[in-house]
Amino acid sequence: MKKVSILGSTGSIGVQSLDVIRMFPEKFKVVALSAGTNIELLKNQIDEFRPDIASVYNEKDAKALNEINSFGTEILYGDNGNKEVAVKSDCDIVISAIVGFNGLIPTLEAIRAKKTVAVANKESLVVAGEILTREAVDNNVSIFPVDSEHSAIFQALHCGEKKFLKRVIITASGGPFLDFPKNKLDEVTVEQALNHPTWDMGDKITIDSATLMNKGFEVIEAKWLFDIPTEKISVWIHPQSIVHSMVEYVDGSFISHLGKPDMKVPIAYALSYPERLALESDTVKPVDFSGLTFEEVETNKFPALSLAIESVNQGGTYPAVLNAANEVAVNAFLEKKIKFTDISNILSKIMDKHNPLDTNSLENIIEADSWSRNNTISMISPGVKKL
Amino acid sequence: MKKVSILGSTGSIGVQSLDVIRMFPEKFKVVALSAGTNIELLKNQIDEFRPDIASVYNEKDAKALNEINSFGTEILYGDNGNKEVAVKSDCDIVISAIVGFNGLIPTLEAIRAKKTVAVANKESLVVAGEILTREAVDNNVSIFPVDSEHSAIFQALHCGEKKFLKRVIITASGGPFLDFPKNKLDEVTVEQALNHPTWDMGDKITIDSATLMNKGFEVIEAKWLFDIPTEKISVWIHPQSIVHSMVEYVDGSFISHLGKPDMKVPIAYALSYPERLALESDTVKPVDFSGLTFEEVETNKFPALSLAIESVNQGGTYPAVLNAANEVAVNAFLEKKIKFTDISNILSKIMDKHNPLDTNSLENIIEADSWSRNNTISMISPGVKKL
Repeated sequence: MKKVSILGSTGSIGVQSLDVIRMFPEKFKVVALSAGTNIELLKNQIDEFRPDIASVYNEKDAKALNEINSFGTEILYGDNGNKEVAVKSDCDIVISAIVGFNGLIPTLEAIRAKKTVAVANKESLVVAGEILTREAVDNNVSIFPVDSEHSAIFQALHCGEKKFLKRVIITASGGPFLDFPKNKLDEVTVEQALNHPTWDMGDKITIDSATLMNKGFEVIEAKWLFDIPTEKISVWIHPQSIVHSMVEYVDGSFISHLGKPDMKVPIAYALSYPERLALESDTVKPVDFSGLTFEEVETNKFPALSLAIESVNQGGTYPAVLNAANEVAVNAFLEKKIKFTDISNILSKIMDKHNPLDTNSLENIIEADSWSRNNTISMISPGVKKL
Repeated sequence: MKKVSILGSTGSIGVQSLDVIRMFPEKFKVVALSAGTNIELLKNQIDEFRPDIASVYNEKDAKALNEINSFGTEILYGDNGNKEVAVKSDCDIVISAIVGFNGLIPTLEAIRAKKTVAVANKESLVVAGEILTREAVDNNVSIFPVDSEHSAIFQALHCGEKKFLKRVIITASGGPFLDFPKNKLDEVTVEQALNHPTWDMGDKITIDSATLMNKGFEVIEAKWLFDIPTEKISVWIHPQSIVHSMVEYVDGSFISHLGKPDMKVPIAYALSYPERLALESDTVKPVDFSGLTFEEVETNKFPALSLAIESVNQGGTYPAVLNAANEVAVNAFLEKKIKFTDISNILSKIMDKHNPLDTNSLENIIEADSWSRNNTISMISPGVKKL
């Protein structure tokens, strides 16, 4: 019986993680949940899974939840609540599924508490991959990927030692604007951008998929998770999202992971590794995998991908700055304050303005993150006072 | 430095094995070669690789070769010659690449001499898979597959324990008659049947690919190599021959091996396992893997596939009988004595006539093989005296 804590239990990954856990009550026990402000859903999760502790974003919601909670679950809140969820003494594995920079600190705390981490929060690896992977080694902790692409790569890497690896190929659906004219991208609406062709995900990652920033982050994530230089990581457009990624070995062998797009598969694998859980699904027929296509990325149409790769190649706090600016810009786009194409333009300008710091300290990353957020907010709304 | 013996060095697999070995003189040394009657090519191979021993089919060729051989290679012939090649004391790995039933005895001798075997001779596994795999276990010997499909499966099985395996999917190009009208198959010529769309192979296996008997044999081979019941083995048509096979795990994960069709890849893997050799090749681009399709097999159009699966499900000496009848019938087709569609019809009749023997003894297999050959010859040429 594995005891599981979930950071971000009411988000898309959190909910699907609980879907997996629900299927295997003999294998998993939820001991801690943390959420943001979706108290209603968290209440239902507490009722069903009866964790020892649960945490919410603010004190007010914690008090409200405490009043209606009848199963003895201890209700916490804020940064300390997240930390308690991440480091709970009897927990075996922490699912890190908080979206954005906010996932970083609790993920790091879980690693320092020697918890196995299933990481869906790619931003934490983007901004602090060096620290997280070093701490994982120092604490003898495994970080298992939850992203379907990285789960695919992780599995394919079982087929040969790293020294025989030629490259990693991360597949990308291309998002909703794959075949959209480049010169019309500045007119796309939020609704169009949220209409992802193959994956059902949260808003932030869906917009990141539309700009291909998500794919850029995945390159950075792969670099840190598997210790592979970005020169050995290619991105191929694969609109069907059946081949979840590939690795190529020096002998010309490509090993790939295929499957219908379903996040429960990589979630289950991260939870059960090295075992595999018998997930129920319809039998796949040849036609289900037929018509697989691959194409090069039009990098000039989707500049976010190159910006992300440049940021990690330049090193230092550039990825942290890129990530923070992206969070602010995506939010501004979702709030219809800026155009879709403004996202990349803003990121590019912020990157140019940044004087990078060393990434060996968490403080520098937090400083760079704040600097970037403030500058991006100013750039988007020049009249607004900096935070 | 691995010392290599090759059974069948002048055939398609033998020649490509030497192509691989030629690229890595620091890793491999050829110590023994055996061929049939292609003395000219064998002479060239001896000149280049200077094995300690070489063997040919008959005494006359051995004498002729001995006269022109100037490097001190000992020239042998016949069954004893093959055996010496298979069991040579300083040999580390034997490539079993004799085509057809004739490959069985030397393969078995190699296993009994505790040699690692790279098996390209699928017929030996078809007729005596039970014996070969049992002897491999008893002698603590590894049998590595050389078929691209089985090499793909072998690699994919590194991604999870067998107990989590749901099924194996063997891909099939479909051969030259995939889109040929079923009711015209009795008119196809030898030249049409030898015109394989994706793989460049020997004549026997190319005809077997056209009938899909080759795929049936591969199901049997997979059953024995990986100890998987035929119910868990599917065959999917995949005309591009890029996905070389797949395994599906219980969680819905499919792991596949992809690559351009090139037998040197699985040959190199069998020779170097668990290492991988840096084979030179053009960089694969997305377009090279684009347009992958999969479809169900039309089993009524290609009855050989079902006949093969039935034969191993019925057990006993049925697969040996099927294989022998197939060798005779394919040969008769190549000699234009029978029509393409006669091959399966003949096999079906021979199977019906057979009273199966137990397969635990090699003698029974040899007896069934002879019975089948004689009966098939009689059926094809009723006036010819049985051998």
